[in-house]
Amino acid sequence: MPDDFPITERTRLRRRPQRGAYDRASVFAILDAGLMCHVGYVVDGKPVVTPTAYWRHGDDLYWHGSAASRMLNSIDGAEVCMTVSHLDGLVVARSAFHQSVQYRSVMVFGQAKLLADHAEKRLAMRMFIERLYPGRSEEIRESSDKELASISVTKLNMTEVSAKLKDSGVVDDEEDYAMQVWAGVIPVRAVLGKAIPDHRLLVSPELPANLTDFAEDVRLDDVLGGHAAHRESTGCQL
Amino acid sequence: MPDDFPITERTRLRRRPQRGAYDRASVFAILDAGLMCHVGYVVDGKPVVTPTAYWRHGDDLYWHGSAASRMLNSIDGAEVCMTVSHLDGLVVARSAFHQSVQYRSVMVFGQAKLLADHAEKRLAMRMFIERLYPGRSEEIRESSDKELASISVTKLNMTEVSAKLKDSGVVDDEEDYAMQVWAGVIPVRAVLGKAIPDHRLLVSPELPANLTDFAEDVRLDDVLGGHAAHRESTGCQL
Repeated sequence: MPDDFPITERTRLRRRPQRGAYDRASVFAILDAGLMCHVGYVVDGKPVVTPTAYWRHGDDLYWHGSAASRMLNSIDGAEVCMTVSHLDGLVVARSAFHQSVQYRSVMVFGQAKLLADHAEKRLAMRMFIERLYPGRSEEIRESSDKELASISVTKLNMTEVSAKLKDSGVVDDEEDYAMQVWAGVIPVRAVLGKAIPDHRLLVSPELPANLTDFAEDVRLDDVLGGHAAHRESTGCQL
Repeated sequence: MPDDFPITERTRLRRRPQRGAYDRASVFAILDAGLMCHVGYVVDGKPVVTPTAYWRHGDDLYWHGSAASRMLNSIDGAEVCMTVSHLDGLVVARSAFHQSVQYRSVMVFGQAKLLADHAEKRLAMRMFIERLYPGRSEEIRESSDKELASISVTKLNMTEVSAKLKDSGVVDDEEDYAMQVWAGVIPVRAVLGKAIPDHRLLVSPELPANLTDFAEDVRLDDVLGGHAAHRESTGCQL
């Protein structure tokens, strides 16, 4: 498998190409650090953008939803654009023009496929759980056939993909550096809060051993990226 | 102005309608707490979803980008779907089927318009700055005509809008509550890091008085929502 995704008409960054990346390492790092994506479909010729949780296995992306969803039912074989973005900071500049944000993002274009049978859906759902909470599949109740029938799982093979990254800090026009005004970067990060145990627990309310990485104030992207790195290093296929 | 947006074929939540809201207070609260949206366009019949910063003024939403962008140039009068989502937590349930996330989201459908002249663009850019950093427009350099010519500013009037909110915590099947496994909610929030002053500052590296609400560990949605509430309470139009 080549390390780079091919650059196509849709994925080539025309402006500021230095912010773009097409190699699997860059793309996967951004995808594996995220949980929510925004998927764009065309319905009756018009765009619809839906936020949803996703997961990755090799070059495939997955997301799921209700089998009753009109959107998911019309998606089989349809063109989609799936976008993941992380907001990393506010760039507070000396001019209105140079205000901006720091971010990491990935855009994936392709034809979505609905998983057809329960075995495929069950495996995909197991991947979802294991990517979020490694080891937890063994402890929880697996989906029943009835439950699997009620959900749609969508698969998108990554062929047209680009990553984009902006982390260059403040860039002002040379003459504006003479201004007596504060400028800088205010970092932004998604962090975890203190876990709230369900009120009907039959076990200790403390986070169990296989969830201790979800500790208060830890970055979500670090936890998720860490899980992916661990899977990679152990050759785990699930 | 009625308090509710009309419910249309595109905005009516068919499944779990109890999670939906169409009133301005709910919709504005979610929009005003956010900074990044995902905008869906149709290009050559196929969807494209772009992350970008946005701002709101009354029933109008705005975002901007390079005037050289093919996407933004083809957007004038085109149908778009603009989606904002906040991830609020991970719902760790006792079955694979009931794993989920807590979130707030808004979807807006409509025809985008490109602002035509520099005066409109300048005013819109001033709104962008003031929503993020109240009072800062007075301190920084305003955009020049050349700069304004190089950007596109898109306006989307909100007519078809829905909000969706999930904060119900763990909901497991009755028989699964007998399981000896941890379940609960792990909150997620976007917070600010310690500000990084630009290395060419001519003023104190400490955050200035009009940026002190961007303090370390404060929630981004609280800061932005607070700015909006203050504008509302003072009747500020900018």
